[in-house]
Amino acid sequence: MAGNTFGTVFKLTTFGESHGVAIGGVIDGCPAGISLDLDKIQEELDKRRPGQSAIVTQRKEPDTVEFLSGIFEGKTTGTPIGFTIKNANQKSKDYSHIKDSYRPSHADYTYDEKYGVRDYRGGGRSSARETACRVVGGAIAKQLLPQISITAYTASVGHIKLDKEYKDIDFSLIESNPVRCPDTASADKMEAYIREIRAQGDTVGGTVQCVIKNVPKGLGEPVFDRLHAQLGKAMLSINAVKGFEYGSGFEGTAMKGSDHNDLFNTDGSTRTNLSGGIQGGISNGMDIYFNVAFKPVATIMQKQQTINSKGEEVEMVGKGRHDPCVVPRAVPIVEAMAALVLADFWLLNKLSRI
Amino acid sequence: MAGNTFGTVFKLTTFGESHGVAIGGVIDGCPAGISLDLDKIQEELDKRRPGQSAIVTQRKEPDTVEFLSGIFEGKTTGTPIGFTIKNANQKSKDYSHIKDSYRPSHADYTYDEKYGVRDYRGGGRSSARETACRVVGGAIAKQLLPQISITAYTASVGHIKLDKEYKDIDFSLIESNPVRCPDTASADKMEAYIREIRAQGDTVGGTVQCVIKNVPKGLGEPVFDRLHAQLGKAMLSINAVKGFEYGSGFEGTAMKGSDHNDLFNTDGSTRTNLSGGIQGGISNGMDIYFNVAFKPVATIMQKQQTINSKGEEVEMVGKGRHDPCVVPRAVPIVEAMAALVLADFWLLNKLSRI
Amino acid sequence: MAGNTFGTVFKLTTFGESHGVAIGGVIDGCPAGISLDLDKIQEELDKRRPGQSAIVTQRKEPDTVEFLSGIFEGKTTGTPIGFTIKNANQKSKDYSHIKDSYRPSHADYTYDEKYGVRDYRGGGRSSARETACRVVGGAIAKQLLPQISITAYTASVGHIKLDKEYKDIDFSLIESNPVRCPDTASADKMEAYIREIRAQGDTVGGTVQCVIKNVPKGLGEPVFDRLHAQLGKAMLSINAVKGFEYGSGFEGTAMKGSDHNDLFNTDGSTRTNLSGGIQGGISNGMDIYFNVAFKPVATIMQKQQTINSKGEEVEMVGKGRHDPCVVPRAVPIVEAMAALVLADFWLLNKLSRI
Amino acid sequence: MAGNTFGTVFKLTTFGESHGVAIGGVIDGCPAGISLDLDKIQEELDKRRPGQSAIVTQRKEPDTVEFLSGIFEGKTTGTPIGFTIKNANQKSKDYSHIKDSYRPSHADYTYDEKYGVRDYRGGGRSSARETACRVVGGAIAKQLLPQISITAYTASVGHIKLDKEYKDIDFSLIESNPVRCPDTASADKMEAYIREIRAQGDTVGGTVQCVIKNVPKGLGEPVFDRLHAQLGKAMLSINAVKGFEYGSGFEGTAMKGSDHNDLFNTDGSTRTNLSGGIQGGISNGMDIYFNVAFKPVATIMQKQQTINSKGEEVEMVGKGRHDPCVVPRAVPIVEAMAALVLADFWLLNKLSRI
Repeated sequence: MAGNTFGTVFKLTTFGESHGVAIGGVIDGCPAGISLDLDKIQEELDKRRPGQSAIVTQRKEPDTVEFLSGIFEGKTTGTPIGFTIKNANQKSKDYSHIKDSYRPSHADYTYDEKYGVRDYRGGGRSSARETACRVVGGAIAKQLLPQISITAYTASVGHIKLDKEYKDIDFSLIESNPVRCPDTASADKMEAYIREIRAQGDTVGGTVQCVIKNVPKGLGEPVFDRLHAQLGKAMLSINAVKGFEYGSGFEGTAMKGSDHNDLFNTDGSTRTNLSGGIQGGISNGMDIYFNVAFKPVATIMQKQQTINSKGEEVEMVGKGRHDPCVVPRAVPIVEAMAALVLADFWLLNKLSRI
Repeated sequence: MAGNTFGTVFKLTTFGESHGVAIGGVIDGCPAGISLDLDKIQEELDKRRPGQSAIVTQRKEPDTVEFLSGIFEGKTTGTPIGFTIKNANQKSKDYSHIKDSYRPSHADYTYDEKYGVRDYRGGGRSSARETACRVVGGAIAKQLLPQISITAYTASVGHIKLDKEYKDIDFSLIESNPVRCPDTASADKMEAYIREIRAQGDTVGGTVQCVIKNVPKGLGEPVFDRLHAQLGKAMLSINAVKGFEYGSGFEGTAMKGSDHNDLFNTDGSTRTNLSGGIQGGISNGMDIYFNVAFKPVATIMQKQQTINSKGEEVEMVGKGRHDPCVVPRAVPIVEAMAALVLADFWLLNKLSRI
Repeated sequence: MAGNTFGTVFKLTTFGESHGVAIGGVIDGCPAGISLDLDKIQEELDKRRPGQSAIVTQRKEPDTVEFLSGIFEGKTTGTPIGFTIKNANQKSKDYSHIKDSYRPSHADYTYDEKYGVRDYRGGGRSSARETACRVVGGAIAKQLLPQISITAYTASVGHIKLDKEYKDIDFSLIESNPVRCPDTASADKMEAYIREIRAQGDTVGGTVQCVIKNVPKGLGEPVFDRLHAQLGKAMLSINAVKGFEYGSGFEGTAMKGSDHNDLFNTDGSTRTNLSGGIQGGISNGMDIYFNVAFKPVATIMQKQQTINSKGEEVEMVGKGRHDPCVVPRAVPIVEAMAALVLADFWLLNKLSRI
Repeated sequence: MAGNTFGTVFKLTTFGESHGVAIGGVIDGCPAGISLDLDKIQEELDKRRPGQSAIVTQRKEPDTVEFLSGIFEGKTTGTPIGFTIKNANQKSKDYSHIKDSYRPSHADYTYDEKYGVRDYRGGGRSSARETACRVVGGAIAKQLLPQISITAYTASVGHIKLDKEYKDIDFSLIESNPVRCPDTASADKMEAYIREIRAQGDTVGGTVQCVIKNVPKGLGEPVFDRLHAQLGKAMLSINAVKGFEYGSGFEGTAMKGSDHNDLFNTDGSTRTNLSGGIQGGISNGMDIYFNVAFKPVATIMQKQQTINSKGEEVEMVGKGRHDPCVVPRAVPIVEAMAALVLADFWLLNKLSRI
């Protein structure tokens, strides 16, 4: 049950259900002396916020973070940073219809099986609303590591792929479109496809790619806490994620060692980067890049057969205001989780040698 | 640095370098009263052992585990289980040539950068030899959970794929060939390809698929310690792993929600299983299945350009006895890590409700 | 820095400064299905509240706890329980005089040395106000373990001692007086002494004794997480605590083994209980009892020499409304921390054997 | 059950029973680059060894530590340090008589209640033999912190007290006598008393005092992981310990704040040190000192009534070779546990501020 804390020395603990009083969290282990830019934190939250564009859920939630502790005269004090985000818009009636029924491919059934009780309002704890707290934590982690740049973007929506290598991406284009795809042509296709899917009352999946630049060498704690292992866990802990690969990933499995090895330049950098910036679980200073797979949102606006808690067949039609594709709003969450991992390992690496 | 423990309440801590006195570990949190079959544990180790077939490294290492504590009159006592595996065959001279040079795509460079010192004998701590201790831990975890069956096998070698759905696999064929592929035709192709690659002094990657049956419902601790997030971390912590996907994985991202959702039968099982036995991070009782991507082994028997610790260009030819393809020997390691994850969550789940 | 979480599987994380917006916490790992009596939780808080009697600080703080998550329709859901307590009465001006000066025997100096920055308002994080969150956590832990009774009381104030064995205490008298001493004669003396001390603008220490009845056998996780070791840490983590002893404690060191050993009755209980209900770090089913030493409050209403952050000598007179003796208000905190320890070990003990 | 690891980032995990093959441990999180003096580690072990003088148990155990990993060319590598200590002298027959009986005030009964199975040979895991591994861990922690001096000594045996303030102790006298009391007159009395007690087939308790000098300011992680709270837990986790107090301890509870406060000198040091070098849970640079209470050893050479596992009354006479007083051999264990706590907090403090 105690699975709501992430990190070893830079720790984020989150709490809250989608339709409770508030969600929130505690960051423990943030060093003292960081001048926090609170507006930047809110900006990250706004990137995740519902209703930000025509192709995401139209729910109205301001998602304003309030900090309760750990910051004094604009600086972190080294004490825990507590924060809350009020649940402004609690349309519980939208969810009354699932009180006794299990939505297919949702967590309703498994929560009931595990806990014997479930907050059925909007998925309760299993709702992706919880990820707003991760964005707050990640935004603070980013300010601890200003030199490191963490950039995520939409790499595919359904079958439509961004056909560019991470090296050739123009990051300035990411926010130029609601899909967050740094290629205008692909972005247009993706947006059109999302509108088409939504018109069908359906949903679609996609992938997010993340690139991390200016990573210090030495981050990662083998053998179990390898940098990419923790990044993988971080991504897989995000709602709807089905897969993670870094560097050459699954494609690399078909390569020969003689083609796959990254030969060194004399400065320690490598000519190629199929390793994805990580060797033996430790960063080597090259760019880190990875892909995260998101399944199609389970809540569709079509009629579905399902069962209720008595095991009786019932019919269900999705209500509420959901995302036809989770990927555009997942981009800031991927960045946030990556930042949390890097902050933790950056601190731990200070202990590697005397 | 403290990254050598895996698990929350069922904990495996490992230690040891490839060419030190011994490797070993401690399992803390194993419940009392389990009648351990020590031969079964050694059998698992033998599946990982070098020299077991013509297509793996010909190093001679008996890899005999010795238990030092935690077992009395054949039963676990609830106290920590300490064990060691002697390093019988320490051919250090094989490695003297890399004392000052960095092998491309190995951990030599990153360990030096992180720790400022490195046990250069055979990769030291970064050697896959460490995984033998994981196999011991996993073999004990399996005996804690006899009802659960965990089965891994080779799903691809290079471009050669096992073209079968996990549901249609005949597990009895896995050990019928040195590749551990449960399809004779594919196995023959894979073996031939590995021999060809080795003849070139080269290496190749591949994928391992793992299927877990008879999983109790309720395993997994959201929001961060989702069952698949921890499985992903476990797999990504294995040497040479580049990716992890479960259920519909990366392919599922191209699907529509209406096709992807797993509709319920009245008994709570689902008609399809694109969820891969996990919903909301918690097991739903259906089969869990996932794929693990392994890169080609970095040590090749061809001449390579590289650099030494002074940053000078040097030439290097791989020595020692290495695997042309790591996948066949990775199969028991994948099973072991999965068993460790399940044991931990199975215990934690006893605390989910009063 | 990450020192604000207590517990292994039943975890309390707290945050908040005495004069910030609010203090609060998160309880992660509380099993689902507990019907929580929220009034009882508030009652425990009220026992700790300032202004509750003539002999404690007259600060006015309602200390009303608001629960934000983890409770649905009156029951715990197995998800994290987040809560806040607003800081109603922020008399910051009372503290402006210590902005640059260090109060003797306070944490002002050490926080500045450690963090390089300090929330000087009322001691910030080092204020005992933080313990209100522990009382909330402990009150929930008590409801998880209704069968176990945890009772603390004042055993001494300055040189005035309660001269009774724990076995002979009438618990019903504890709340009959503001000192929380279960002996009317001693209570009167203690109260008079506290009034006298306060009239001098001075403070005094004392001890709290705690008795735990109906403890299940088997609680405690040797070798390091012995039941009494964790109880000791819990008590020593409370502000102003200087010592902990259980069972025969320090006096027992002068005894002979032949007098100190607790001989068994045939039902496994013992004729004497110098072991204090714990043997080998594990509860044996007998009453657990221990003493906690509290130093005199450091803030006195007398003129004192001290230094400022520039290292200059300055004079200081205590301001604000402080406790002349912390012991009466410490009683519920001792109970709360004991409850947190027992809840954690009670859950962990479910994992001791198959 | 997972209670066999101590520390947050500098972690010691121990395993082993008194009469198994070997005891041992793993230190994970020791920084790379420490030139280890292995002889010094063995010296610490020898101070704890049985048979070292006429007044301790005459068991013959060489207690030679063998390091298996984590050290290369004399230096720590940052990887886990595994070690074992063989159980040379396994006089199991000495213990056959307790196979089915419970020794009064031992852990026999509670281990059976908790685990349902028990290694009855010499107390198994509950034997103080396990503390040898702590001494190894502590000896390495001491070499990580050469500037800090940690000195423990016998402060009382039974009713015989060392009547000196910690400030006035001549540490050079500690090893001048088998009792490890730095006052010759008191040492003689103590030794005579131990001989007298042993002649009666009885045992006696005592106290150990520990003084830590040259402590960096800033060690300790409030609110729960206060420096003294962790020291207290460390000491209370040692076999036979019943109490812990630091600074003014229990006596300080009778003092007034005006007498108890430590006034500052302009350099930040304090004129008095009733705080015991710790304020608000954080070291202030002054000497840390504390007392640890040890009960009389439970195994006596006299006839005792007890019960067997069937709940039948039986008679028992202690066999084997036991310590009449555990205090002299406890001195190095107290130092070791203090060193482990300081190493952990010294590393954590590197993360306190940017």
